Amino acid sequence: MKMLINVPETVVADALRGMAAAHPELTVDVDNRVIVRRDAPVAGKVALVSGGGSGHEPLHGGFVGPGMLSAACPGEVFTSPVPDQMLRAAAAVDSGAGVLFIVKNYTGDVLNFDMAAELAEDEGIQIAKVLVNDDVAVTDSLYTAGRRGTGATLFVEKIAGAAAEEGQPLERVEAVARQINESSRSFGVALSAVTTPAKGSPTFDLPPGELELGIGIHGEPGRERRAMMTSREIADFAVHAVLEDLQPRNPVLVLVNGMGATPLLELYGFNAEVQRVLGERGVAVARTLVGNYVTSLDMAGASVTLCQVDEEVLRLWDAPVRTPGLRWGV
Amino acid sequence: MKMLINVPETVVADALRGMAAAHPELTVDVDNRVIVRRDAPVAGKVALVSGGGSGHEPLHGGFVGPGMLSAACPGEVFTSPVPDQMLRAAAAVDSGAGVLFIVKNYTGDVLNFDMAAELAEDEGIQIAKVLVNDDVAVTDSLYTAGRRGTGATLFVEKIAGAAAEEGQPLERVEAVARQINESSRSFGVALSAVTTPAKGSPTFDLPPGELELGIGIHGEPGRERRAMMTSREIADFAVHAVLEDLQPRNPVLVLVNGMGATPLLELYGFNAEVQRVLGERGVAVARTLVGNYVTSLDMAGASVTLCQVDEEVLRLWDAPVRTPGLRWGV
Repeated sequence: MKMLINVPETVVADALRGMAAAHPELTVDVDNRVIVRRDAPVAGKVALVSGGGSGHEPLHGGFVGPGMLSAACPGEVFTSPVPDQMLRAAAAVDSGAGVLFIVKNYTGDVLNFDMAAELAEDEGIQIAKVLVNDDVAVTDSLYTAGRRGTGATLFVEKIAGAAAEEGQPLERVEAVARQINESSRSFGVALSAVTTPAKGSPTFDLPPGELELGIGIHGEPGRERRAMMTSREIADFAVHAVLEDLQPRNPVLVLVNGMGATPLLELYGFNAEVQRVLGERGVAVARTLVGNYVTSLDMAGASVTLCQVDEEVLRLWDAPVRTPGLRWGV
Repeated sequence: MKMLINVPETVVADALRGMAAAHPELTVDVDNRVIVRRDAPVAGKVALVSGGGSGHEPLHGGFVGPGMLSAACPGEVFTSPVPDQMLRAAAAVDSGAGVLFIVKNYTGDVLNFDMAAELAEDEGIQIAKVLVNDDVAVTDSLYTAGRRGTGATLFVEKIAGAAAEEGQPLERVEAVARQINESSRSFGVALSAVTTPAKGSPTFDLPPGELELGIGIHGEPGRERRAMMTSREIADFAVHAVLEDLQPRNPVLVLVNGMGATPLLELYGFNAEVQRVLGERGVAVARTLVGNYVTSLDMAGASVTLCQVDEEVLRLWDAPVRTPGLRWGV
């Protein structure tokens, strides 16, 4: 598999240098692998820190900025960052109002953020944590005990980020983040396998003419393989899987998320089918976002995330955000 | 090749239905294939209309909105829209201040926009046209006499769009658009071929271990094939090709554009190398944009576009824009 890289060993460092050049509004510490909004710490404001393996861009580094994350820690590709990165990030952004760690539910991330929380508290930084585990496809998988964290991470980071930006205290920001995770569910499909720079060949074998339903964002196995399905059939399957678990009574935010290599033209067409299913099931749609936000390198496919919202959450969703990957209202 | 579609015949219509659902701020006429900003026509404002084959999203439909295009006409995949679409778009957005057609230099687009201009003028709409032909890789190619129009289209649409938004008259907006095209050059590389829905298999054969230098955005041939190169080597080749032709004396805008299937992680790493070459050549960088903006469906690869700017152009670049694909300052 051909890649636009130098050598696998420098992929993350090279990308951080490229981010630094493109985004003077961020402080990118290439050596220590921490991306921080330039004006941090913001006096009186709760800070949000997230992170995880690289390869899911723009998540998380592309979501650093006013109205969303205060800092992000990128690990190696598909590998958790280390506690020292998280501690450094927390120290850089804490204004004294405390720090919320947003942690996708993968074993490495959970352990390392736990350790970083202890270290940070030893240094007098108040830490709260929220675990994102929205993927209904499987319980327990290759890297996870329980459900995986996927597309809902964007909703948690945006909405809790808005609450923090308007000055809500740590316990409220944490409660909002927890509420968003509990109100969100995701389901993804893969049309092709993912290739990591280190391995250089696809991480699993997906034969021509088949797709994998319920895939994660690291190429870990899903629920089942089937003969290739149409956009219409995939939307039926994915949205039903989400609705069965979520059973929303309120309007929903919709994220139709590309895994990386699926053209935007196809994602918009898939969105039309997702909206059709939601309409048939009587689910009202408050807002829709279509694009590549929580990706898996060069994997083809898509995921659907729904988050049921009340008026207060919708207000926070609509609040201004200014990051490389998500931007509106400012 | 697996795709997230229903049938090839409905790919464009399906995508337009999905755009309509995701973007209530746009008026999407699915039957007639015209995407219009909802508040058009804007009294006293020059309107900008572009369009071209589908498969390059977010170009052009994703660039409709305040500060950029007034309307866009998507054709079938890699196929020019028809004059009737362009006429309909012009009629929908003309406030009496005239309409600028922004035309990428492909034979079909040029002929059809010419015909639409005649039809529109017959209906009393004042039309100006600007041709975008920034690709230095080849003169004449599969679909083009002269140079192809690629990444500079984004610069023309954004900067002329800002001039129109602040009320500049048609002759000024046209002059700005022409200046931006003349100040811009691009060069692209492909690491994989592109597969159209209608064909279902790659449009050309690119062996493992080779890349194509100077590729267009439809899989048309480039300058040459070589054994796979590193990000550093590709940046040297592409930036030198652009600089040789442009010889900028002013600072430049940089667009590091993904062709569709290359991960954002790799695009940022490639940007680091592009910035290195520019630094070595003493070219000052005013702004940098990294992402998938002028794509070629599922092709892997990237292009570099440089546009030399003066203070006035930079002011227009920084002016507010609110479209699905490009958004800042509002």
